[in-house]
Formats: sequence, structure tokens, C-alpha cells
Amino acid sequence: MRAVLMQDRALSVGEVPDPAPGAGEVLVDVLACGICGSDLHSATHAAEFNVATRDALGVELMDLSRPVSFGHEFVGAVAGHGPGTTGALPVGTRVVSVPALVRETPAFLGFCGPELPGGYAERMLLTEALLMPVPDHVDTAVAALTEPLAVAHRAVARAQLGPDDVPLVVGCGPIGLGVIATLRRAGAGPIVAADYSASRRELAGRLGADVVVDPAVTSPYTAWAQAAATDDPARAAPPTAILGALPLRPTVAFECVGVPGVIDQVVASAPAASRIVVAGLCAGPDSFQPTTAVLKEIDIRFSLMYSPEQFAQTFSDVCDGSLDVAPMLSGTVGLDEVPEVFARLSSDPVDTKVLIDPAKIAGRRPDAAAAAAAAV
Amino acid sequence: MRAVLMQDRALSVGEVPDPAPGAGEVLVDVLACGICGSDLHSATHAAEFNVATRDALGVELMDLSRPVSFGHEFVGAVAGHGPGTTGALPVGTRVVSVPALVRETPAFLGFCGPELPGGYAERMLLTEALLMPVPDHVDTAVAALTEPLAVAHRAVARAQLGPDDVPLVVGCGPIGLGVIATLRRAGAGPIVAADYSASRRELAGRLGADVVVDPAVTSPYTAWAQAAATDDPARAAPPTAILGALPLRPTVAFECVGVPGVIDQVVASAPAASRIVVAGLCAGPDSFQPTTAVLKEIDIRFSLMYSPEQFAQTFSDVCDGSLDVAPMLSGTVGLDEVPEVFARLSSDPVDTKVLIDPAKIAGRRPDAAAAAAAAV
Repeated sequence: MRAVLMQDRALSVGEVPDPAPGAGEVLVDVLACGICGSDLHSATHAAEFNVATRDALGVELMDLSRPVSFGHEFVGAVAGHGPGTTGALPVGTRVVSVPALVRETPAFLGFCGPELPGGYAERMLLTEALLMPVPDHVDTAVAALTEPLAVAHRAVARAQLGPDDVPLVVGCGPIGLGVIATLRRAGAGPIVAADYSASRRELAGRLGADVVVDPAVTSPYTAWAQAAATDDPARAAPPTAILGALPLRPTVAFECVGVPGVIDQVVASAPAASRIVVAGLCAGPDSFQPTTAVLKEIDIRFSLMYSPEQFAQTFSDVCDGSLDVAPMLSGTVGLDEVPEVFARLSSDPVDTKVLIDPAKIAGRRPDAAAAAAAAV
Repeated sequence: MRAVLMQDRALSVGEVPDPAPGAGEVLVDVLACGICGSDLHSATHAAEFNVATRDALGVELMDLSRPVSFGHEFVGAVAGHGPGTTGALPVGTRVVSVPALVRETPAFLGFCGPELPGGYAERMLLTEALLMPVPDHVDTAVAALTEPLAVAHRAVARAQLGPDDVPLVVGCGPIGLGVIATLRRAGAGPIVAADYSASRRELAGRLGADVVVDPAVTSPYTAWAQAAATDDPARAAPPTAILGALPLRPTVAFECVGVPGVIDQVVASAPAASRIVVAGLCAGPDSFQPTTAVLKEIDIRFSLMYSPEQFAQTFSDVCDGSLDVAPMLSGTVGLDEVPEVFARLSSDPVDTKVLIDPAKIAGRRPDAAAAAAAAV
């Protein structure tokens, strides 16, 4: 089968053997797979990212001596059942799953070698027990947004929103937009959002942001403080030691950019007592002013991925329309186009969520899945 | 009267006019005043500190065009009442107060000019409504620890301790020791503490640390993880997204050092899902690895000073013996010795809490206060 592989920072498309499902596993045809900022990041900063995961988690995420097969935001169609499966979901059933393969040594799909491909391939293996069938009325492309939305779900959960919180979303890429949609679903607001891209700002508004600013023109932090202004002490943020109570509702920022300097900028510009949830992934060291954070009594909460329950809840929200995120989809490409798209997204990320459809080139999809995809 | 003044990073002792109490204010003779790390910091990094307060709070803490009068950890004896006071606390009454003068433009005592001296002087002004009388059985020197202990109180409050939390205290200076005592009073444990100084380690144990390590010999983080180990899933920390549940109780670190690199070190070495309360004040920029913080889903909570209620609660705890912190006291010096003591504390901070007793040199204290001080 065909697959996109990354080695030495370069992507290429080639043939790899079809994977064979082990005990409790199913083979799926990949119907759609999102291109994630983490994939771009893992291609350009692979060695740094490995050092970070080794330091933090005791294990290197990727084996960089071999090609890596990306793709953890996938929708598949069941194409075959391995030994010891129940077969409850017949061939052709569209499914999503957390990107993990339950084995004696669990595999983090999307960061393994070509023998355990991610969604940048025609086929991949999934653990049957983790499969969630996609209801007929849900587009494949929308279902493929479940994973990044689950990331946003956890980021919002990490904020521990109160009823008076006024959120600022810094960066309206897929995670920022997902945070906006999740905040909207949670009833939070006014939601302030900032991005340099006009198309992303337009999307931020469609997904639920109440105040959308171009940082080149308007300070997001001024807009945020204006949105948080209140005359009602009962709605105000808890007082800090040195400033007492400000005439502001509690303020929580979501850092969804992930480049060096943004945390420092948010710390420097946020109102006192703000919480900052960091969902952006920033390679290498970053610097900030701890004295400023102390004087303002800032909270910085770092967020990663999601729990299985958060993934399932997000999928349910996507399926029942509570999260209407279809506007985030900005196009579909075939496997052969992926290297070029990576280069474009890395240099000028105006697209929001680009999906890979392996059938767009390969044309080898079984009929049942093709029919399901055609319904999208 | 005599006062220690700081200008251009240098301390000197000189004569300044006696301050005259305004409406609602009392004059007190300073009986004792602690030398705080913030004072040392404000002398050596005055300009940086001003930039930080201007950026964070919109106001420069100190007017550096004139001498600054330090001292915000004081005990005084009422020496005179200004207009519009009640006189409820007669002359001679020992008092503590939050270091603030309630005026149209509030003054932050200990960082003003010589006309509003802090506790590094023979006399100072306080707002009558903020005074708390020191009970007869409480030593003046112990009462002078209220302010740094209130800082520790808030730091512990910022941690939002749960019943299973295992704390690590990094740095056993006055704030770290106060955190240990406050954690002990809260019933938290085992408490792990680390400091390079043998004398401070000894104090950490006396104040309630269960495991005390010398970082030159033993990793505080290994000791902390060992102390937090649990086989009981019900007591374990909430799972992180990527590591799931660790066989560890929830872990919370208190950064009480305040030099660059310590936050990075704690982030790098803490178990996943740790909370880090930053009580140390670190001048200038600091750097850390946000990827590590994301992968571990760390919380960093910055803490400053205390609320008036937290100060009052701490004072109550000091007075009723709930916080037994007398071992922190490492000596008393006169005003003339302060410049030399500053130089020593800045280069080799093995002392814990050095108090200034202005009467030690000046010998001008009224009898009532002298008698109270003699009882210490």
C-alpha cells in the first residue's frame, strides 16, 4: 500500500507492506486523516521533540533511525478482523479511535514506523475495543475533527471555567478554533479571539468568538480587558495580594500558538490573577519574566491531548451537532500532495484543517467505504 | 531619628526627621524588623524590580531618585496618636500590621522614601485601623515573623492542598521554612525539603519536614517521588493524558529559592501532573522547556504576599502557638550593622531570619517598649 513517510525532516510517498492485524485488532482503510500541527512540528523538530519526550516521559516518541508514519486524526472503514476480535463492527463500518494500539508495548499511532502506520497511509491497524462507529449522518470529514477537538476539550477542562470567566483565545488555528467552539458549547463568554490571519479570524467568529481582533491592528489584551470589565464586585476575579480586586471578571487565556515568546507575551499582558492554559506546543526553551508572573499571581496550566473519556465525549458532541465545526475544514488532498502541503503549512499556515484522503490518488478503496465517503 | 537608607544599591545609616502621624495614623517605635530576601533583592536589582512592577502593576514600586527606607516585617510599640484616631491601643502597646498605610495614595511601607520609613528605622507610621496588638505572652521577635509566615500561608493556599498531596519544598530560607511549618499545621505529609545549607536543613526538620535532603548528595526529586509512591489507586494523582495514572500521590512543589533556572529544574524533574507554587522572586528573565511542561501537564502557580485576612490568620496562628517558628530566628542586629549584614546575606545566605532592633544601637526606646522587648 502507499504511505507518506518522514525521515530526516523530509516527507516522501512510497510503498510499504500492508499491515496485518494482530489479536484483538482490525485493519481499516483510511478514509480521512487530518494534518496536525504536531505532525509539522515532529517533522521539523523531530530530534528536539524526542529529547523532550525522553526527558519528560522517559521514552523517545519516535525511532528516528527509521521512517516515521504520521497521522493521528483519522477516520477509517473496517476492512478486516484479526484473530480474537468480536467482529461486532462489520467490514465497511466507519470508525474513529484514540490513536493508540493496545499491545503489550502500547503504540502511539501516528508516530510509529511503517509497520504500524498512522493515518497518512491507505490502511492502518486499530484496537477493536477502542473503536467508535461513526453514525451515518455524520460526515467522514467532520468525524476526522474529533481528535483535535478532544485536545481543545481538555484545554478548556484544564481552565476549570467558572460562570464569570472571560476567555481570550490566542491563535485561531485548529486548536484555537476548537477551544472557541468548546467554550461556546460551555456557555462561556464573551469569547475574545486573536489571529493575524483574516481567514482564521472569520472562522473564529463563525465558531463562536464574540470579539475577534487582528493583533497587528488591535491589542488582544486590551480587547480582553474591555470584555472582562464589570462594575459588579460579585462577578469580579478574586483579589490579588498587591492589587486587591480589579473591576474585571476572572480572565483565562488559551495559548494556542506554540511559538517561543507567546507565553511571555500573555504573562506580560494579562490582567492580574489570570489563568493561562497552554495548549500550544513550543519546541526548545522559552523565556518569560517570573517576577511579572509573581506580581500578578498568574496560573499557567499546561494541557496535553485528552483522556479516552474526553475523546468519547467530544465525539458525541461532534455527532449530535453540539460542536458545529465543519467550517474548520479547508480542503482535502491526496497522499502525493502531502509533502508539498507540509511545506506550505509550515511557511504560511492560513489553512485551518487540511485532510488527507488516501483514495484521492490511490483509488483502491473497497466499495462500502467508498460509498460512505461519497455521502460526505 | 536614625534609619537605614538604600540608594544606588548601597545601604547607609543616617539621621532623618521623625515622621508625624496624619489623620487616622499612629507613630510607633520599631521594636524589631526582619531582613527579608525582597529587601536584598530590591537593593541589588532595584531598577529591574521597578521595571517589573511598572510592567505588571502599572506603577514603579520605588522612587529610585531618592533614598528608599526598607522594612516590612516589623513589630512596633505605639508611641503617639495622630488626629482622628481612637486611641484604643495606648502608648506602649506592641502591634503588628500589614505593611500598608491607608492614604488617598496608599503607601507600601518598606519601599517608600525616608518620610514614610519602613522598619529599618527607629520610628514609623502605621494606620490605626490596621493595627493588631501583640498578646503579652508572645515574643516580639516571634511576632516579627508574622509577615514572612503570611507569605508562606498564601503560597500553601495557592496549592489548594488535597488530603493526599505530597509536598516538596525547594529552598529552606525563611519562606521555605514558613511553608514547611504551614504545611505541618495543615496536616500535609510526608513533607520533603531540600537545601544546600546544613543549618537550614536542620531547621527544616525542626519545623516539620519529614524527609530533608542535601541536593549536593541526594536528588530532592527522587526523594519526593519515593515519598509520594502509593499502591492505592484511590490516593493516586489524576491521570495525565499521555502517561495515564502514575503510582504516585498528587505532588506539589514549592519553589522558595527565587534564582533563575529553578523553575526549569522543577518542571524537568517533577512527576507528571505536579503543581508548582512559585513563591521565590527571581529577577530578570528565566527560561524553561514548555514542551516538558506540556508533556507532563504541569501547573505553575505564582504567589505573592497575602490578603489582610491571611495576615490576620497567620498572626493568630503565631500567637496561639499553632505555628511554632521561633527556631527560624537567627539573631538580632542594630541599625549600624545592617549594611554589613546585607553584604553577608547576599553572598552566603546561611542565616535564616535576622532581625533588626533599632534600640540595640540607638538606646532611645521608651521604657514600656523596652520592658516588653526585654521579656523576649
